[in-house]
Amino acid sequence: MRKRNPANGDKSATEAAPRNGLLDRRALLRAGALAAGIASVGAGIARAAETVGADAPDWMKTPGRSFSTYGMPSKWQEKVQRAFTVLPGRPGTGASRTPLHLLEGTITPNGLHFERHHNGVPDIDPNRHELVIHGLVKRPLAFSVETLLRYPMESQIRFVECSGNSGSFNQREPQQTTAGGLNGLLSCSEWTGVRLATLLDEAGIDRSAKWVIAEGADAAAMSRSVPVEKCLDDAVIALYQNGEAIRPEQGFPMRLLLPGFEGNMNVKWLRRLKVMAQPVNARDETSHYTELMPNGKARQYMFLQDVKSAIIKPSLGMKMKGPGFYEISGLAWSGSGRVSKVEVSTDGGKSWAGAPLTPPVLSKALTRFRLPWQWDGGPATLMSRATDEKGAVQPTRAAWVSQYSPVQFYHFNGIQGWRVDADGTVKHVYV
Amino acid sequence: MRKRNPANGDKSATEAAPRNGLLDRRALLRAGALAAGIASVGAGIARAAETVGADAPDWMKTPGRSFSTYGMPSKWQEKVQRAFTVLPGRPGTGASRTPLHLLEGTITPNGLHFERHHNGVPDIDPNRHELVIHGLVKRPLAFSVETLLRYPMESQIRFVECSGNSGSFNQREPQQTTAGGLNGLLSCSEWTGVRLATLLDEAGIDRSAKWVIAEGADAAAMSRSVPVEKCLDDAVIALYQNGEAIRPEQGFPMRLLLPGFEGNMNVKWLRRLKVMAQPVNARDETSHYTELMPNGKARQYMFLQDVKSAIIKPSLGMKMKGPGFYEISGLAWSGSGRVSKVEVSTDGGKSWAGAPLTPPVLSKALTRFRLPWQWDGGPATLMSRATDEKGAVQPTRAAWVSQYSPVQFYHFNGIQGWRVDADGTVKHVYV
Repeated sequence: MRKRNPANGDKSATEAAPRNGLLDRRALLRAGALAAGIASVGAGIARAAETVGADAPDWMKTPGRSFSTYGMPSKWQEKVQRAFTVLPGRPGTGASRTPLHLLEGTITPNGLHFERHHNGVPDIDPNRHELVIHGLVKRPLAFSVETLLRYPMESQIRFVECSGNSGSFNQREPQQTTAGGLNGLLSCSEWTGVRLATLLDEAGIDRSAKWVIAEGADAAAMSRSVPVEKCLDDAVIALYQNGEAIRPEQGFPMRLLLPGFEGNMNVKWLRRLKVMAQPVNARDETSHYTELMPNGKARQYMFLQDVKSAIIKPSLGMKMKGPGFYEISGLAWSGSGRVSKVEVSTDGGKSWAGAPLTPPVLSKALTRFRLPWQWDGGPATLMSRATDEKGAVQPTRAAWVSQYSPVQFYHFNGIQGWRVDADGTVKHVYV
Repeated sequence: MRKRNPANGDKSATEAAPRNGLLDRRALLRAGALAAGIASVGAGIARAAETVGADAPDWMKTPGRSFSTYGMPSKWQEKVQRAFTVLPGRPGTGASRTPLHLLEGTITPNGLHFERHHNGVPDIDPNRHELVIHGLVKRPLAFSVETLLRYPMESQIRFVECSGNSGSFNQREPQQTTAGGLNGLLSCSEWTGVRLATLLDEAGIDRSAKWVIAEGADAAAMSRSVPVEKCLDDAVIALYQNGEAIRPEQGFPMRLLLPGFEGNMNVKWLRRLKVMAQPVNARDETSHYTELMPNGKARQYMFLQDVKSAIIKPSLGMKMKGPGFYEISGLAWSGSGRVSKVEVSTDGGKSWAGAPLTPPVLSKALTRFRLPWQWDGGPATLMSRATDEKGAVQPTRAAWVSQYSPVQFYHFNGIQGWRVDADGTVKHVYV
């Protein structure tokens, strides 16, 4: 395979532009004509300012409000919320989604990180909470929060995605919901904590150790079996999320962070790690979080979140305002490492152009891609296709569906599509 | 200058370790002995777990609370706040500080981003707000929020620092306050918005243009003159902060982001950019934000935040719990680009060791450094000294102070110190 610069997408795909209105950002830049190119379009967007300074707005005529100890979003942003669905009669069991379609960049603000709880959010006294490491170890050890803070810390920007994210793509008809509604069991934060390998080495794991059973201190005692190799690799006991103590909904006072592995394995409110020779077959790795195959058998222990992407802008709920310049923008990610390439199509997959990736392109983190698009006002079908540094490429939805029983919905990573109609509305379509 | 790997600090400084208890993390790693090295210390930190699973805590015995549309920190974190000081009788004029000593990593959660207001936080209706570009341009233009969202977006992780940050270092005696109290007019976010150069090119700036006057829509009409070169370089009209719409305290619905330039120039609630041939000498660049020199003259238009660092852990308010392993951790940043090196001393500057920098090390962003330290229990004086990719090095406090009038306090970037006493208390000392 040719070597690629992940920050610039695939060269061959971007050189031959424009195609179907997709503008080659680099070609424009090379000609020193990005601004001019935008301007020729943009002049139709911005309004000529003929009344400069005529009137100062009301809010300049009176002193503004004072300081606050902990800030909140503007009241004008009150619709930027997590939407949640819960099981009937079980208000603590379900999920809430990050409103990706209302956000930008790659970092998820802590208040909007998606939630998935199996029996609600426990109210843990951090002074009474301990993490115990036991089982096949020389020295069982207990770590308070205060104790863990004595250890060397690490910070990494990583995504967390529920394995059930985008699960509705197993339906016969495309669900007419927003990009956040479809893909919002997905968030990305800077996590800080202690490398799990350091603690396991201190406890002294036995040679027979193959699995580590992680248990949460919630009322579901959420438990998962994790291969010991992952625990000795990049696993972290996370105590901080985007700088501040991890939020209750994300596991306060500590969670297991397994970069790239399905969300529920990143056990929240972590209280126990038992080192074992075999997996434990916990409830949430038998009744849930398995892949049902066409022959009726379930595949267990499929941990990795595969390479995936979604166009966020434009998407359902947005209305195109006539022909002209638009930016196509979206998110790409892979549980296996860095995203190396995202290609975008506006003609339903007939032709593709490489979309530049906004640096820094980090391993197992959300990556933003952006591509200028000159919409001619006709019907268009937008798609994105990501490739990761291991060479894995998103499959088509049809190829993905064909692998499984029709009711299986975990780990969907197929190519997604939006249909732009001539009247500017955006619909969800299968491609 | 020798080429350095910024992610690993300066090679020569770290090779010869340990010195004064500073452990060479890479030397340990090379010997495969990091964990062992920590363990021999750490075994004294963690508690032997002899009562594994004996009792489930209360919070596992009852379902937890339900989902929320917008999450908040744990009630156990209520002391993690911005502390603020305001002018008497003017509740909207002053500053609040990010509690750096209670945070980790490099991203500041939006609720804790520092505030500096000159007449309070305006309550702006984003549907009525416009940014006007006028003056020496071919086409004066007005941009609504909706219009700006049509333009190509960029995201960057950048720090914003008030030029008055760490201003108390001009005092004769070191102020006995926390690391956040001293340095908390400093935050770091992922900012997303439109490159200003794109908008200026669209308006068509005149050849005689040398300055751009930025004006905020607050009751102070906060105004600053910005060199046109900066506006055509990496300046951004920021609309999003860590993914969500910029907070009211940081300029909702839009602010000017001038990476590396002093905080107040990153004009919040931005309403107007007037292109001019000369600076405007606004109130906040004459009565404030100038550097008073020993001869009584004031130096104007000193924009850049110089290379700087501070040790955050340990720091005042923390109590060392006896000899043993500790991690020294802190933040480094430079308005000129990437941090290339941070050196740490525990003996008041007699010897120094390179501290590894946590990747990604980004331009004009906060960078976390961390170094293992074996404290022998005796008095120690901790210092950090940052160097940036341009070769600029933090000066001593004495050298910094000697440049100015004794009452000048802007742009302090001297080397800071913490004294650890034998009883484990940490005091602020000048070094």
